[in-house]
Amino acid sequence: MPQGSRPEMLPAVSSDIVDDSPATQVKSAGPVGRATMDMLSELRPIFYPRALAVVGVSRDETKFGSRFLQALLDFGFKGKIYPVSPAGTEILGLRTYPNVRDVPGPVDLAAIMVPAHLVPAVLEDCLAKGVKGAEVFTSGFAETGEERGRDLERELTLIARRGIRIVGPNCFGIYCPASGLTLLPGGDFPRESGPVAFISQSGGHAVEFAREARGRGIRFSKVISYGNGCDLNEADLLEYMAQDGETKIVAMYIEGPREGRRFAQLVRGLAPRKPVVIWKAGLTRAGGRAAHSHTASLGGEEAVWDALFKQAAAVPVCGLEELADTVLAFLHLPASTGRRAGVVGGGGGISVAAADACD
Amino acid sequence: MPQGSRPEMLPAVSSDIVDDSPATQVKSAGPVGRATMDMLSELRPIFYPRALAVVGVSRDETKFGSRFLQALLDFGFKGKIYPVSPAGTEILGLRTYPNVRDVPGPVDLAAIMVPAHLVPAVLEDCLAKGVKGAEVFTSGFAETGEERGRDLERELTLIARRGIRIVGPNCFGIYCPASGLTLLPGGDFPRESGPVAFISQSGGHAVEFAREARGRGIRFSKVISYGNGCDLNEADLLEYMAQDGETKIVAMYIEGPREGRRFAQLVRGLAPRKPVVIWKAGLTRAGGRAAHSHTASLGGEEAVWDALFKQAAAVPVCGLEELADTVLAFLHLPASTGRRAGVVGGGGGISVAAADACD
Repeated sequence: MPQGSRPEMLPAVSSDIVDDSPATQVKSAGPVGRATMDMLSELRPIFYPRALAVVGVSRDETKFGSRFLQALLDFGFKGKIYPVSPAGTEILGLRTYPNVRDVPGPVDLAAIMVPAHLVPAVLEDCLAKGVKGAEVFTSGFAETGEERGRDLERELTLIARRGIRIVGPNCFGIYCPASGLTLLPGGDFPRESGPVAFISQSGGHAVEFAREARGRGIRFSKVISYGNGCDLNEADLLEYMAQDGETKIVAMYIEGPREGRRFAQLVRGLAPRKPVVIWKAGLTRAGGRAAHSHTASLGGEEAVWDALFKQAAAVPVCGLEELADTVLAFLHLPASTGRRAGVVGGGGGISVAAADACD
Repeated sequence: MPQGSRPEMLPAVSSDIVDDSPATQVKSAGPVGRATMDMLSELRPIFYPRALAVVGVSRDETKFGSRFLQALLDFGFKGKIYPVSPAGTEILGLRTYPNVRDVPGPVDLAAIMVPAHLVPAVLEDCLAKGVKGAEVFTSGFAETGEERGRDLERELTLIARRGIRIVGPNCFGIYCPASGLTLLPGGDFPRESGPVAFISQSGGHAVEFAREARGRGIRFSKVISYGNGCDLNEADLLEYMAQDGETKIVAMYIEGPREGRRFAQLVRGLAPRKPVVIWKAGLTRAGGRAAHSHTASLGGEEAVWDALFKQAAAVPVCGLEELADTVLAFLHLPASTGRRAGVVGGGGGISVAAADACD
């Protein structure tokens, strides 16, 4: 185990993991923390929407909007779908509405893919309509490194505080087989649920992991790509998965935590009950720069993360394949407290490799 | 690049890589080294046999012999196949012979899968018949760690010196698309040749790598599983690949070298012309023990191998996936002498991972 070779003198986790987003600044300035609410109830409209508005679709089938709509139809979303588009009356056989406020029935979740500068107005419409959650696919916010993008993202965070929970921006959305919700591109993902949740700051990794895991027989309760995490962040989503009865194992890909202290506490509390496997990226200098331009994240210090992994008994991995292998082990092997390993291999070469890996 | 972090004080390679097999002891005691002969001519009957005897087949289709025969038929071996079996007259539509000496025409290569204690007698028959090469699939030699197995293997080495070159024992054989020769199980391997040679001490890895590489579009000149290397070893096979016009890139899986000094010299000479990518297993204590019981190999010292990689410009990898990725890079990317890397990625998450990997 890599833990064995770690230095014994470790900084305390809770005071060192950086909280790095505009959202956190807004949050900590606010009067009331929302994180202690019942996350299951609060996020039910996001994971199990009965009606979904897709805002920003066009007839152009190469565009994000209609491809997402097609993925939902292919996957078999179980609720109502309302495409919202300023032009036209029908897309892929579904009636369109010029504004989310024009939708006749209630809407639980809005999938938003309009250009960045139009997102705040769409969210205001959602608030007015009583929409409970939004997944904002659009990019062009804090990850641009520009003042305008940061301001726009702060605006989203402030809107969220007025009564709508936001996934994203700069994300690929949510895959939840039980409700028929899927990522883009995820029209062909498995329809059956499983015990694994994957919380990923990268949309690409979310899609890739779902694919990689499929062949290994790993099935998911939820896969969520949360991008910049302007509202719902790694801590919120981990708290949800802690409460979620469908989820028994939590896998995570994190570039930079938004609420590091709270996140560390949550991991500590959850790990004894449900394994938490984390791929922390961006810990090198180059990786940190890439993470900053990808999701406006601060990579953080490796020693701090080592401390988290050690103190909170989270399992560190590096790469999607190791993430999948580790999740697979938790799925099929009983818990063990010892450090001794016996290898049973159907071949000499793989036994040597396994022995090398154990030593 | 991992090289950058290696210690500057390195032991000299040529005096430290251990030569660890009974074969080496026999060789170095002999009057004439055979390694400097023209390897292309000498091993032509092994890689491109016009007639192949399969010694030790039975009608039992679950047994190694008939499965190997079936793989050859499925793959489409281009020469003549002579099953050798003490019982019966026909197997899988092919006429059988009680002894390799009873085969009517000339035989280039014998694939031997009789029990270990019968192998020397079969090899004597091969010598008498004028067979040029043998792949001995049978295990139960030096890798058992027992005196009897070591003696048997020494016997094989001595027979080889009298005029037949041996691949193995304890191996899965050879895959050479150009001649239609294949490993077991390799009946469905690609029929087309490619520029990559894989020299593997593990039969399982040989098969697995061929499969892994297939999906990546890597095609092979030769894949050879050489097991205990009682006669043909890593140095002989590397020398062959150095001369082989079909081979442009050499990938290797090594547990323990049989002629470390010669091997290091060969790598140094070859690496500037053809990339040499090496997965050296068994460098940990547990891995070394596993390697010893797998192919009677001494794992060796990590520092010595680091020196080889640094001085000889061989590329170290760890694991089949990294081996495949590295070979793929040599296949498609032009040579570079610099240490700066630019990453172009179709996604944020994979770009962060690539940046982390580069740093």
